[in-house]
Amino acid sequence: MTYDLWYWPTIQGRGEFVRLVLEAGGIAYRDRARTDGVEAMMHDMAARGPRAPFAPPYLVAGDTTVAQVADIVLFLQDRHGIEPRDEAARYWLHQLQLTVADLVAEVHAVHHPVDPMAYYDEQRAEAMRAAAQFRAARLPKFLGHFEAALGAADGAFVAGEKWSGIDMALFQIVAGLRYMFPRRMAALAGDYPRLAALHDGVAALPAVAAYLASDRRVAFNTDGIFRHYPELDGD
Amino acid sequence: MTYDLWYWPTIQGRGEFVRLVLEAGGIAYRDRARTDGVEAMMHDMAARGPRAPFAPPYLVAGDTTVAQVADIVLFLQDRHGIEPRDEAARYWLHQLQLTVADLVAEVHAVHHPVDPMAYYDEQRAEAMRAAAQFRAARLPKFLGHFEAALGAADGAFVAGEKWSGIDMALFQIVAGLRYMFPRRMAALAGDYPRLAALHDGVAALPAVAAYLASDRRVAFNTDGIFRHYPELDGD
Repeated sequence: MTYDLWYWPTIQGRGEFVRLVLEAGGIAYRDRARTDGVEAMMHDMAARGPRAPFAPPYLVAGDTTVAQVADIVLFLQDRHGIEPRDEAARYWLHQLQLTVADLVAEVHAVHHPVDPMAYYDEQRAEAMRAAAQFRAARLPKFLGHFEAALGAADGAFVAGEKWSGIDMALFQIVAGLRYMFPRRMAALAGDYPRLAALHDGVAALPAVAAYLASDRRVAFNTDGIFRHYPELDGD
Repeated sequence: MTYDLWYWPTIQGRGEFVRLVLEAGGIAYRDRARTDGVEAMMHDMAARGPRAPFAPPYLVAGDTTVAQVADIVLFLQDRHGIEPRDEAARYWLHQLQLTVADLVAEVHAVHHPVDPMAYYDEQRAEAMRAAAQFRAARLPKFLGHFEAALGAADGAFVAGEKWSGIDMALFQIVAGLRYMFPRRMAALAGDYPRLAALHDGVAALPAVAAYLASDRRVAFNTDGIFRHYPELDGD
């Protein structure tokens, strides 16, 4: 079965965490809003009635619709055997995935601290303050947590010798944070060797490398979650 | 087995979503930081090494440690048969639980829009702006989503005739939002009849009623997630 993924077509955003799992797993999907447009997505979403998603991304698999990145990843892992070996590992990987989701929400709040519906330029002063604390405190706290978590891995990936959704997620946050905060991430380079190695290991997976080199990978830009505004960066 | 729950002892916060499931399910647990204190929690958390939680709450079940509210709820539902009847419902309920987590994060960001580590009084001006947009746009959007979701329920609870974690979560957000925004929630009363009925249905469950009347239920206060600051409320 070919899945339908619906997500904003011009950004990586939260949808990228799903795209990476689909691509790495060689799972057939259509990135629907990229062919059908945003209006079609709004219509599709509204037509789903009481079980309509709160927001994109969402994945349609026949009669089943799944939204929320971590839930979609869980669904794909269950369906395609991309799961960890034991029950405890399953909850542990999902827990990490949820902590990535928290980080992603905080990253978005850096450039939209007071009004998610308004433009960045309308909250730039507040964003400057939010970015300063994020760079100083929250960013190292999150990266330190993931670096420590990788200390428990007994293989090249979080769950061992085989990649799973959390590896795609950690790849994406390293890539995103390097784009958003080049100066800060350069200053921190060397502090998180396991995370850097994992990033490179994921990028070197043949299916991922092919994806990243294709036009299916939207480029980072200042409409997404990770946004490079030089005034929000610093050593 | 008696679980150990570790969470900040003087607030409901995120821990309350776990406490409610444990209490409703009659599941034995110790609320460890309430007896052993916060310092013991910090020691316990640090001693967990590479699999240490990012933050409380976390639940300890023998050798297994689970953190992140939605992951803990999933774990408890699996272990104690508090699960929905079919696979699609399972992902759907988890998806709703993750949307509750998003709402909780946004609620916290209302009073801490630019610096989660600083005091409210240090970001009060930004919080006034964040609260205005939250009351006007995000709050009705979230409540409308959950109200619509309840339209798919074929019983008193989201998954049918039996409660599950999402019912506890929706009860808690209604209770919390009524405490935090009494004026705004009074203005909206009547717009979300299914959500209001669900709140009352959960509160009337004998195990929940007994819990709410006990001293195990910490009172709402201005150290938690839901905080009543009159200047952040409005019709």
